[in-house]
Amino acid sequence: MDKFKFMILVATVAAFALVYFPTESEGQSYFRMPSPWTYVCKNGTCTKKLRSDSTVIQSLDTCRLRCGRFRAIWPRPTGDVELSRVVVPFKPQNLRILPVTAPTDRIRELLNRVVTDFQKNVLRMHPNHEEGGPNPFDKQYDNVIEGTVVQVQVVVDDPEERLTLETSEGYRIDIETQGNVVTAEVRGDTFFGARHGLETLSQLIAFDEQRDTVQIISAGAVIDRPLFAYRGLMLDTSRNFISMKAMKKLVDGMAYNKLNTLHWHITDSHSFPFYSQRVPQLTLYGAYTPEKIYFPEDIKDFVEYSRVRGVRVIPELDAPSHISGGWQGLERSNAVQPGPNTIQPAPVSVTSGGPMAVCVNAEPWNQFCSEPPCGQLNPVNEQTYLVLGKLYRDLLGVFDTDAFHMGGDDVNFNCWNSSKEITDFLSAQRRNRTEREFLQLWATFQRRAYVELVRAARGTELTPIVWASNLMVQENIENILDPERYIIQFRNSGRDRSLAAMLDKGYRIVFSNRDAWQFDCGFGDWMGEGRGSCGGYKTWQRVYDNNPLRVIAQLNTTEEIDLQPGQIIGGEASLWTEQVDEMGLEAKVWPRGAALAERLWANPFSSWRDAADRLIHHRERMVKRNINADRLQPEWCLQNQGRCSTN
Amino acid sequence: MDKFKFMILVATVAAFALVYFPTESEGQSYFRMPSPWTYVCKNGTCTKKLRSDSTVIQSLDTCRLRCGRFRAIWPRPTGDVELSRVVVPFKPQNLRILPVTAPTDRIRELLNRVVTDFQKNVLRMHPNHEEGGPNPFDKQYDNVIEGTVVQVQVVVDDPEERLTLETSEGYRIDIETQGNVVTAEVRGDTFFGARHGLETLSQLIAFDEQRDTVQIISAGAVIDRPLFAYRGLMLDTSRNFISMKAMKKLVDGMAYNKLNTLHWHITDSHSFPFYSQRVPQLTLYGAYTPEKIYFPEDIKDFVEYSRVRGVRVIPELDAPSHISGGWQGLERSNAVQPGPNTIQPAPVSVTSGGPMAVCVNAEPWNQFCSEPPCGQLNPVNEQTYLVLGKLYRDLLGVFDTDAFHMGGDDVNFNCWNSSKEITDFLSAQRRNRTEREFLQLWATFQRRAYVELVRAARGTELTPIVWASNLMVQENIENILDPERYIIQFRNSGRDRSLAAMLDKGYRIVFSNRDAWQFDCGFGDWMGEGRGSCGGYKTWQRVYDNNPLRVIAQLNTTEEIDLQPGQIIGGEASLWTEQVDEMGLEAKVWPRGAALAERLWANPFSSWRDAADRLIHHRERMVKRNINADRLQPEWCLQNQGRCSTN
Repeated sequence: MDKFKFMILVATVAAFALVYFPTESEGQSYFRMPSPWTYVCKNGTCTKKLRSDSTVIQSLDTCRLRCGRFRAIWPRPTGDVELSRVVVPFKPQNLRILPVTAPTDRIRELLNRVVTDFQKNVLRMHPNHEEGGPNPFDKQYDNVIEGTVVQVQVVVDDPEERLTLETSEGYRIDIETQGNVVTAEVRGDTFFGARHGLETLSQLIAFDEQRDTVQIISAGAVIDRPLFAYRGLMLDTSRNFISMKAMKKLVDGMAYNKLNTLHWHITDSHSFPFYSQRVPQLTLYGAYTPEKIYFPEDIKDFVEYSRVRGVRVIPELDAPSHISGGWQGLERSNAVQPGPNTIQPAPVSVTSGGPMAVCVNAEPWNQFCSEPPCGQLNPVNEQTYLVLGKLYRDLLGVFDTDAFHMGGDDVNFNCWNSSKEITDFLSAQRRNRTEREFLQLWATFQRRAYVELVRAARGTELTPIVWASNLMVQENIENILDPERYIIQFRNSGRDRSLAAMLDKGYRIVFSNRDAWQFDCGFGDWMGEGRGSCGGYKTWQRVYDNNPLRVIAQLNTTEEIDLQPGQIIGGEASLWTEQVDEMGLEAKVWPRGAALAERLWANPFSSWRDAADRLIHHRERMVKRNINADRLQPEWCLQNQGRCSTN
Repeated sequence: MDKFKFMILVATVAAFALVYFPTESEGQSYFRMPSPWTYVCKNGTCTKKLRSDSTVIQSLDTCRLRCGRFRAIWPRPTGDVELSRVVVPFKPQNLRILPVTAPTDRIRELLNRVVTDFQKNVLRMHPNHEEGGPNPFDKQYDNVIEGTVVQVQVVVDDPEERLTLETSEGYRIDIETQGNVVTAEVRGDTFFGARHGLETLSQLIAFDEQRDTVQIISAGAVIDRPLFAYRGLMLDTSRNFISMKAMKKLVDGMAYNKLNTLHWHITDSHSFPFYSQRVPQLTLYGAYTPEKIYFPEDIKDFVEYSRVRGVRVIPELDAPSHISGGWQGLERSNAVQPGPNTIQPAPVSVTSGGPMAVCVNAEPWNQFCSEPPCGQLNPVNEQTYLVLGKLYRDLLGVFDTDAFHMGGDDVNFNCWNSSKEITDFLSAQRRNRTEREFLQLWATFQRRAYVELVRAARGTELTPIVWASNLMVQENIENILDPERYIIQFRNSGRDRSLAAMLDKGYRIVFSNRDAWQFDCGFGDWMGEGRGSCGGYKTWQRVYDNNPLRVIAQLNTTEEIDLQPGQIIGGEASLWTEQVDEMGLEAKVWPRGAALAERLWANPFSSWRDAADRLIHHRERMVKRNINADRLQPEWCLQNQGRCSTN
C-alpha cells in the first residue's frame, strides 16, 4: 500500500470513529443511567418520587398529560372534557393532516396555515429542537411506534373570515383509536373556533422522554367556547417603538392562549410611527428615526398574520389629547428641501385658526398634560379635521376590523385654555371659559371625529371604543357618546365607582382596571425615583383573580347594578411602554398574559391556587415555542407540585 | 444568438436590476430626505432640535461623543479626562492593532483575545450589523475617510494572570492625530487594567449616521482606576438552572461595565447542578435533569472566558444549611443499577452518625428553614466531612481564584434539634440543647470545613467569604471567624446596625444590602399572593444612590465607626433565581447592573440625576452589543435629554 492510500485509510477510520464514537466525558456518560426519579399523579398534581427498581419511569410531561381534570390544557375548557388516561406514542412524521373541510378557498387557505403552525409546535416539543433546524425526531423507533399513524381532520362550515364581536369561537374535538390509527377530528363553529381547537389538540400531545418521541391521548372529547368575546392585550408603540418581528411574536403568544384582540395604541405624543400616505409629514417629523416606522404593507401583512392566529387587530389613533409627535412639524414642513429622488409632499395649507396642535412640549408639563411631552389637537381649527380625516382614511385602509379605538383620554382643558386661538374662538362666540364650555368643545370634536371622519373614512358603521375618563361621569354623557354605539374601556382602579355609572347608562365595557391588568407597573418612576404612577408589579395571582363580575359585585354603590347580558364584553391587559421595549416585552407580558387569558376564556369561580400547576406547566410549553415567558417559581416547584405554598 | 445564451443574458440583466435597483416603496423613499432634526450639546446634554436649512446634521451618537465632562464613558473615570471635541471619521477596516507589548506569551494571548472583542464591538455600532454576519461597513467612502488609519497600541508590563483583591486595574489612554493617522495607546497596570482601557477606548468611538462610518475622538487622555477592588454580581443557579451560554452573556455585560467579580451560588437545597467526579451521586440525585449540569470542562472554559473579560469567578458551595438536592439520595445510591456502558460510582459507606443531611424536605417547612425544600448538613456525622472534602476538592480543582464563598447563612438550630442523631450526640457529651450549644456545633463545623477541608483541598491559603447572619452578632464571633482572614458579605437592610458591629470587629465587608442591591425583588411572592420577601423592585436610581460609605455614615449607632482603609472591599448585587431563569435574566440585571458598576468604580458624591443621560445612552450601547437590557424611559427622553424629570 502506498503512502497516499494509507493516509486516506487513516483519515477514513478517524472520521468513522468520530461519527460512531463521539467523545463523551466520563461525567456525561454517568447520566446515561436510567433516572432514579419518576412522576406520580396524585390528587390531580404530578409529584417527583424516587422510583423503586421495578417502577416504570414516567416523565413529568407524560404525567401531566394524564393527570387532573383539565390535563395540560390552558386556558381550561368551559364545556365537557372527557379524556382517556391512555396515551399512544407516535412519530411526528406520522402525523397525517387530512384535507380540510372548508366552505371556501379562503377558509381552506387560512386553515392550512394554522395546520402548518400546529405541526411546527409538535416538533418543538423535542428538547433538541432548534428554530429553523432539522426534525429532531428523525431516528429509529420500535415497530409499534413506526407503524402508528395519527390523522387529523379539521372541519369548518361557516365562511366568516373576519373576527367580530359576534363571531362564535367554539369548537369540539373528538379523538378515537382503532388499531394503530388515532383519529382526531376538530370541528370549529367558524375558522376561529377551529384554530382554537387545533391549539387545544396540540396540548393533548406531549413529548415522551423515555421513548424520545411524542404521544397523544388515545380517546375522548373536548367541547369548548369562550365566555367573553373580547380577550385582549393593548400595546403602545409610541413611547417606544416595537418592531413587527416582536409584534408577531406577541401574537404567537396570544394564539397559544386563545387571546383574540390586539389593541394597538399606535401613536401618542412621544412619537408618530404610522406612515400616512396622505400626510407623510406627520411621520417624517414624528417618527423617532426613519427605521422606526410602520408602513402600510407591513401593517397589512401583520393583520393577516394575526388573523391566522385568531387575533383581530384594533388600531387606536388617540385624539384629541396624546398627540404631538409630528403635528408640530406639520406646518413647518413646507420649508423642508427634499433630497434627490424623493417625493415632495403636498403642502399643508395653514388656516387662520392657529396651529393644529396646541401646548406642544409645554412646560411645566404637569399643568397641561399627564406626562411629557404635552400636546393636544386644536378643535377650533378646521384644518385639524381635514388632516385627521386623511389620517383615519389611511389607517382604516390598512386595518380590517369592525371596531376602532378613538382614544379620548386625558383631555386637558387647561391646555386648551392656554391657547389664544381657542380662547379667542370662545370669546367670539360669547362663550366663557368654564369647564362646561370646554366639555362642549370636546363633545363637538368627538362627534365630528366619529360622524364626519371615521364613518366617512370606512364608508360603513364601525364600533367606536373610547377610554373611560372623567369626561364620562358627566350627567349627560349619553348625549355625547351614544351607549348603543360606543364601547368604553375602563382603566381606573377596580374600586372606582364611576364604573357603576357607566354600566347604569348601558355602555358596553372592556375591563382594564389598572390595579390588576396593567402589565408595565412596578418598575419605578421613569421621571424620578418613586414607585411610579401605577404602584407595584401586578403578580400573576392578582391578574388571575381579577374576575370582572366579582369586581362589579364588590363595588361600594348605593344602588343595585343590573348588568345586561354581554354588557361586559371582555377585558384587556395594557402594556404602556414608557419602560418597555423589545428587550423586556415578552417577559413582562408572559406568563401573566396567560393568567389573563384563562380568566377571560373561562372566568372560573376558583382562584389562582387551582390553576397554578397547570400554569407553570403551560409556561414551559410557551418557552419551548420560543416565547420568552418569565419564570414564576424554582423548577423544584414544577417537579414537586403543590409543595411551594405558604398556605 | 441562440436561445440558451439569450436566457442567460436575461437572467443576468434581471439579477443586475435586483441588486442595483432594489424595490423601495414610495413611503420608504420618502425618508431618504435629509432628517429635519439635529442634535445640539448644551449644558452637557444633547437635545433634539429642528434644524434650519444651513445647519449641519449631527446625530445623537456624535453629539454624545463630544458632549459633557465624561462624554459617553460608563462608568465614569476617576482620574483626569481631557478629550478633544474634534472627531475623526474612519472605516473600521482601517483599525490597525499594533502587536501588543506584553511581558509573557500568556498575557499576549489574553490581550489578543480582548482586542478581538474590541474590534467586534466597533462593527456592532452599525445599525445593520447582525451577529455573525458580514462587515456592514463594507462600502465606498470619500477619499479622506478611505485614507484615515487608526492605530491601537496596547502595553502591559506586569505578568499577573489572575485577578486577586490586590491586583491593580488602572490604565491610561493617550490619543493623538498626525496627518491622517490617529494613534491610541492603552497602557494597563496589569492585563486587567489594559482590558478596561480597551473598553473605555471603544466608548470613545461612535457610529456616524451621516457618513455611515465610525468616528473617534482625535486627541486626549484618560487616566482611570477603580475605587473598590470587588465589584460583583451574584448568580444563583440552584433555584433555576442557567446555561453556560447565558452565563457567558452575563459576563459580556459585566465586561462592558468593568464589573470584575461573578459570585456563583452554584448549589442550594433546590438542585445540585455541579458535577462532582468524586461524588457523582450528588449530581445524579440532585440535578433537575441530566441536561441541567455543569461539567468540569464547561466550568474551566467559563473561568477562562471570564478572565479574558476581566471577571474573576468566585464559587460558593453553601453549607451547612441550604443543602438537600442530592444529599438525601446519596445514601440510597448504592442500590441504583447502572445501565450498560455507564460507570458504577464508588459506594458511599454510611456510618452510624445518622444521615448526612437532616430535616430534608421537612414540613411545615417554616419551622426548619427559610423556604422549601428544607435540608441541612449533619455536623456530627464524620461521613459528612469526608464527602464535603471531596466536593471542595472537585470544586476548587476547576476554579482559579484566591477567594471561596462558604455560605454559612440561615443555619437553623431547630432543624438540628429535630434530628435524633444530633440530640443523641449532644446528650452523650452531656451538653444540653441550648442555642449556645448549637452555636458551638456550627462553630466546630465551620472551623473544620475551612481548616481541614477547604485549605487542604487547595493546598494553599484561600480567603474564605461567608454571608452575614445572626450568627455573626455573637459576642465572641471573632474566635470562630478570624477577622484577619474572613470576608463577610452583608445582605440585610442598609439600616441594620449589625453592620456596625462587624465593622467594629475589623471584618472586611462586601456590601450587598438587600434594600438596594437585590435584583430579583418586586415580582411578587412565589409561594403565595403577597409582595414577596424583599419588597418592591429596586429601581436603577436606588441602585445608583446606594453609596456604601454614606450608608455606614447614616447608621443609627451610639459609637463612632472607624473604618480601616480598604475595609469595605466593594459590593455586589445579588440575583436569587426563585423567579428568574434565562428568559428574564438579562432584563433583570441590565441596566441596573450598570448603575451598580458606576457606584463601585467611581463612588461619586453625586446622585443618579447627574448620571441619567449617560446611563440611558450606555444602555443603548449594551443593546447594540447584544445585551437584553431593559428600557428605562421612552426613546423621547433619550432624544430630548433633561426633559423627563419630575423635578
